Amino acid sequence: MSHRSRQARIGGRLADKDLDALIVTDPVNVRYLSGFVGSNGVLVVTAGHRVLLTDSRYTVAARAQVVDTDVVIAGRDLLDSMAEVVPTGRVGIEADHMTVARRDRMASRLRAIDLVPVTGIVEGLRVVKDPGELDLIREATRVADAALARLVAEGFAGRTEAETAWALHGWMRDLGAEGASFDIIVAGGAHGALPHAVPRGERIPPDTLVVVDMGARIGGYASDCTRTLSTGILPPALEEAYAVCREAHGAALAACRAGVHSREVDSAARNIITAAGLGDRFGHGLGHGVGLDIHERPWLRQEGGEVLQTGMVVTIEPGIYLEGVGGVRIEDLAVVGDDGCEVLTCVPTDLITTTI
Amino acid sequence: MSHRSRQARIGGRLADKDLDALIVTDPVNVRYLSGFVGSNGVLVVTAGHRVLLTDSRYTVAARAQVVDTDVVIAGRDLLDSMAEVVPTGRVGIEADHMTVARRDRMASRLRAIDLVPVTGIVEGLRVVKDPGELDLIREATRVADAALARLVAEGFAGRTEAETAWALHGWMRDLGAEGASFDIIVAGGAHGALPHAVPRGERIPPDTLVVVDMGARIGGYASDCTRTLSTGILPPALEEAYAVCREAHGAALAACRAGVHSREVDSAARNIITAAGLGDRFGHGLGHGVGLDIHERPWLRQEGGEVLQTGMVVTIEPGIYLEGVGGVRIEDLAVVGDDGCEVLTCVPTDLITTTI
Repeated sequence: MSHRSRQARIGGRLADKDLDALIVTDPVNVRYLSGFVGSNGVLVVTAGHRVLLTDSRYTVAARAQVVDTDVVIAGRDLLDSMAEVVPTGRVGIEADHMTVARRDRMASRLRAIDLVPVTGIVEGLRVVKDPGELDLIREATRVADAALARLVAEGFAGRTEAETAWALHGWMRDLGAEGASFDIIVAGGAHGALPHAVPRGERIPPDTLVVVDMGARIGGYASDCTRTLSTGILPPALEEAYAVCREAHGAALAACRAGVHSREVDSAARNIITAAGLGDRFGHGLGHGVGLDIHERPWLRQEGGEVLQTGMVVTIEPGIYLEGVGGVRIEDLAVVGDDGCEVLTCVPTDLITTTI
Repeated sequence: MSHRSRQARIGGRLADKDLDALIVTDPVNVRYLSGFVGSNGVLVVTAGHRVLLTDSRYTVAARAQVVDTDVVIAGRDLLDSMAEVVPTGRVGIEADHMTVARRDRMASRLRAIDLVPVTGIVEGLRVVKDPGELDLIREATRVADAALARLVAEGFAGRTEAETAWALHGWMRDLGAEGASFDIIVAGGAHGALPHAVPRGERIPPDTLVVVDMGARIGGYASDCTRTLSTGILPPALEEAYAVCREAHGAALAACRAGVHSREVDSAARNIITAAGLGDRFGHGLGHGVGLDIHERPWLRQEGGEVLQTGMVVTIEPGIYLEGVGGVRIEDLAVVGDDGCEVLTCVPTDLITTTI
């Protein structure tokens, strides 16, 4: 699906909501619709026309990047030029992205226009990936897999958590990634009990688990993968947690297909962890969508969520966190299909013991 | 200044605005006031008390990080627990950070509370740095300087723009940085005419200018520095642009002191570039404040801005961009003082020719 066809689909959404235009301010949504990548861009979309407002820092880049979109170079405060390009009538603003202050400033400048807070219009298009997007996500996954496989083969080689994260980042870059898709987590021993641990300048301890959560970015698209590696003889509590987490992970993958509500996929994993008496140690949702954003719709958890559709890309990442002892998380990236899901991640999920 | 004294100063601001409490949602402002570092935290501040709401992913981290702050572990949607901790009365929300959708959800949950959009309360404290903050910014500058000095000494050594950016990033990290404070820019030849150029997989050309814009992060605090290196015999237009830019840079530094409006410092540089007939090639403001955010108050440009105060940390970064030919930008980080400014950046600004 090209930027042009995305634009055409937006036209339908505007009609559904009785909007004359949509002011797109989220940079990721601007990129998705127009191709523009920059820190200061606003896209004004009507049924048949679109205009990108940006400032002079992006004059050359904007003209090179956008597809079928007029470019207006404005002052740094894009509001100064907005009245020229926004049509009168009912105009949507992205309520999930626009701040209260910006909306108020916009309303005072565009007095003749009825600014209508709307949510999820562009995100609703982004949730199902087209083949070009899937290619980029596959490639980002391949690169992260290769870096992780190198870590498994080499072992930690005396590296600290932070040095390991940096090495993984560099390997992904050498393999063609634009960078990491988020701050890589490497968390050994008790530190692994923090789901969002920050890598420390400490050596990886023996006889424990090490959570490694990483992803690459290619063409703007992210991948996301977690493996938990053993560094020797595990305490029974961690051995059990790993086995339970892996079983939960497999059950969730088996439940993941189009037509199933995301909550049910979360339940497939959560029921197993709860049955093992560890339900209160799984304090986050099962997963999330991945695309231009590392975290995006659909949300795989008990609250909210939605019915899965073919072409969604989601993480399946149950975790069990034992405060003071350690943690385990096993995460694959999968494409939702009619009859199941295609797992993109190629690193095995059985417990791998590495050298430190 | 400790988190405790920052908190005390907030009490005075609440009284000034006749607020019973402030709901702090910007992650940087939350960190500044409480010490909490995480992706999901809301700080509720009253004159004598503060409560951090976060979710179970951050239970351990939050308790370790915060100072004199109660921690409430809520569900992922912190709104679910907000009614328990927000006092009735007039309660400020950060209009520059809270989205329209979040404000609307909050208003529907906190019906007894008068939510008042306010701006700049915490930013107004952050704008003047205390000695502990200055130490971290100095250290971040020292690390970036050392990496840049290594590049000057080694030359580009056959590296592409992207490889050079990656090398600088790694050297800063080896020197103790948590990472780069923003995406490093390395832009040679005509690519340097894009002020926000993204490094490419292309070799650095001879006989041109290369813009290198970089900074390190230490303890959460950023540094920011740009140097433009020559790779041989320059075309006269670039040689002239460099000389004009350097003169403008020096004039702005000389004008930068407490009591001067930020607009006047911008003018000191802009007048020189305009007098050289290049005013329309300097399409951005002169500089910005640096702290926990890489771009923060004060803004050194013609519109807006403010009177400079002792202890502000600002960039001085005039640029001249010749489309199709090349660009030059020279940037120092400086601490505003009563009688002038202290330049933190130690790399010289005279034109340096490096090998490629």
